[in-house]
Amino acid sequence: MKNKYAIGIDIGGTGTAFGIINHRGEILYREEISTRKHETVTSFLEELSGILLPAIDHVGGMEIIKGIGIGAPNGNYYTGTIDYAPNLKWKGIIPLAKLINEKFKLPAALTNDANAAAVGEMMYGAARGMKDFIMITLGTGVGSGIVANGQLILGHDGFAGELGHTVIIRDGRLHPGTGLHGSLESYASATGVALTAIEFLDRTNQDSLLRNYDKETIDSKIVYDCAIQGDVVAKNVYEFTGKILGEALANFVMFSSPEAIILFGGLTNAGDLIMKPTKENMEKNLLPIFRNKVKLIFSELKEADAAILGASALVWDMKG
Amino acid sequence: MKNKYAIGIDIGGTGTAFGIINHRGEILYREEISTRKHETVTSFLEELSGILLPAIDHVGGMEIIKGIGIGAPNGNYYTGTIDYAPNLKWKGIIPLAKLINEKFKLPAALTNDANAAAVGEMMYGAARGMKDFIMITLGTGVGSGIVANGQLILGHDGFAGELGHTVIIRDGRLHPGTGLHGSLESYASATGVALTAIEFLDRTNQDSLLRNYDKETIDSKIVYDCAIQGDVVAKNVYEFTGKILGEALANFVMFSSPEAIILFGGLTNAGDLIMKPTKENMEKNLLPIFRNKVKLIFSELKEADAAILGASALVWDMKG
Repeated sequence: MKNKYAIGIDIGGTGTAFGIINHRGEILYREEISTRKHETVTSFLEELSGILLPAIDHVGGMEIIKGIGIGAPNGNYYTGTIDYAPNLKWKGIIPLAKLINEKFKLPAALTNDANAAAVGEMMYGAARGMKDFIMITLGTGVGSGIVANGQLILGHDGFAGELGHTVIIRDGRLHPGTGLHGSLESYASATGVALTAIEFLDRTNQDSLLRNYDKETIDSKIVYDCAIQGDVVAKNVYEFTGKILGEALANFVMFSSPEAIILFGGLTNAGDLIMKPTKENMEKNLLPIFRNKVKLIFSELKEADAAILGASALVWDMKG
Repeated sequence: MKNKYAIGIDIGGTGTAFGIINHRGEILYREEISTRKHETVTSFLEELSGILLPAIDHVGGMEIIKGIGIGAPNGNYYTGTIDYAPNLKWKGIIPLAKLINEKFKLPAALTNDANAAAVGEMMYGAARGMKDFIMITLGTGVGSGIVANGQLILGHDGFAGELGHTVIIRDGRLHPGTGLHGSLESYASATGVALTAIEFLDRTNQDSLLRNYDKETIDSKIVYDCAIQGDVVAKNVYEFTGKILGEALANFVMFSSPEAIILFGGLTNAGDLIMKPTKENMEKNLLPIFRNKVKLIFSELKEADAAILGASALVWDMKG
């Protein structure tokens, strides 16, 4: 049976998840590899095809796969390229859709990873039935996908929805990948949480479980572990991160007045530690007409599944 | 001939402009009244109808008017109400479409003033043929209308596009109408320009033509007059205003990646004094992928005509 399955690939700064999906949005096969360890896109594609090709054979061979949809940071739907992604090691413009097409001999389409997640959420997740919502991915970086009037906002050049790079703290922390100061991604990402923890430790002599770790090894997972053990400094890191995220979300609400903002990605594992200060500071910074109206929710889909499913939706939309 | 003309009304914080428009977008009759002097919407409607009803008679009577379209701050297309507009004296929720309908016995539709201006610009102005652009009105307040995928973004509740209330300077100047600190409108409006001038005068003893005026009387017109005479303090006011506006625009570009941003309203009369620092600071705060791509332009339409024309477009869209 032709066109039975689609492949969805979600490329993140740290890892890449991919799967084989049927028409009902069920993920029949799912695997992950590291993105970060690959210095070049060529070596990345080698590992990907080494795992994915046998999996395709296993489900019935190339003939029944309609195509491959990919979500990637700075992925451009119109050109099929990844352009200057600050969170990837592959620099410049990467013609990924073309490379994937050549490697797998299957039609390939590419979009921004957060746009893919937004589409997945709209088709299979927490945004079912919504026409206006914003999806924010809080991972290695901060991505976003914006849906208004039931459509993804791509912008005139396909690059819309880079909310992680909006500046929230004027003259704030430097983002080494972009050169911008005080952008949301510098704070509300896994990297940002670790940096905030180190700044907080440097600023005072306050006791903290975080001091049991070498500074260079502190990551968002360690901050989380310390916070759930009641560590005050670690909890303050989440308060601070949530404050900045909430302030940013308030600005976004005044842009597109969404029914919901859906949070997604590693940082959401912190649950109420991040949700509470985020919601509180979002509400505080809204005009009264927007207050207590926007649903701030976590994604219902499993980690990366929203993006895999959304990427696969690109395939079902392909002609033929 | 039935449905020959439409009426467009543009309500601003200071003045209200209105006109009678034909199908080709020509304004056959145009008049203005003060908004600000009317403490109540009832007295405003009295003056409006006292002028507009004779004008309607003059062009051929009620029978040939299809309806009335209105643009107003915080105007909501879905409900036909003005909700808690910070820049109007009429507080609470004003059912303006209903009141206009009762007064004139004509179908009436309402939208946000900046949304109306964006539609006017898309149909008759600088945004003809564009599918993705942002209109920013720099008047008494700062309004905005956002078009993506060729459609106005209204949001799930009709209140999208309140970019004047996004916070640009964390813990910055208090906006007395909203209680927010550091919102764009606190700086990049006529009111903001006057406040900045007074702050600059207070902060130093630098010579300035502005010192020839009583502080309470300084408005954006006086600042402009001094700036074109070469006054350094007045010129710095525009540099500062343009810096904040440019930083704000950069954030907006990373949201919807528009082909153009169209500036409109009183502040644009300052020409390059405001355009140069705005453009420079917008570019500086953009990710490389967005740089030197967004057209930053002034509206081509006469003051308020974009909003009158856009408001009249609501009428042509009415059924029947």
